[in-house]
Amino acid sequence: MTNGNLLAALPATRPPAEAFEVLVERAGWKVERIVSWGHVTAPGEWFDQTTDEFVALLSGAARLQVEGEPAPRELAPGDWVFLPARIRHRVEWTDEGKPTVWLAIHAVP
Amino acid sequence: MTNGNLLAALPATRPPAEAFEVLVERAGWKVERIVSWGHVTAPGEWFDQTTDEFVALLSGAARLQVEGEPAPRELAPGDWVFLPARIRHRVEWTDEGKPTVWLAIHAVP
Repeated sequence: MTNGNLLAALPATRPPAEAFEVLVERAGWKVERIVSWGHVTAPGEWFDQTTDEFVALLSGAARLQVEGEPAPRELAPGDWVFLPARIRHRVEWTDEGKPTVWLAIHAVP
Repeated sequence: MTNGNLLAALPATRPPAEAFEVLVERAGWKVERIVSWGHVTAPGEWFDQTTDEFVALLSGAARLQVEGEPAPRELAPGDWVFLPARIRHRVEWTDEGKPTVWLAIHAVP
């Protein structure tokens, strides 16, 4: 048994890079915490994953652009999105004043 | 693509029973929101699951008893626990003054 707190151990100041932490990995799925602080997907880049992802924003704020949608989705605490494999998406913006915490569940092939 | 908010559509008063809502179900895993409000595991009963579960408390408060541990774990917002299959556990208490929201990821055989 492992445990922790999704909102704990957050940086006090903006770190140079996003932080990715796998909390649990099992056959078929894994759970990851991501902490952003003003970080975005590099200009012109898209996530184009071969596996399904469920992602929830737990604190902070973000804008998620899904390819083909007219505008980014504004994400606030509690908001979740299911991103099937091959749905191209990018993070356009995350809060620059405080950490944004994501909880992601990824399918593992 | 589906989406929603984990903290939205909460009851204004205590409902008779816990609410279980499957948000996403894929081969090998599913994501479920559970809303408790003073609900607990029936006296003398234990959850004894054949599959692994990751559970996080997002709002409210709870006490989770794991078999063999000297005292229940006090869970606050952000707290998560990985419960491998066959770890017997029970919810001893949830906040009686407001909803307690859980996010659970279950392995699906």
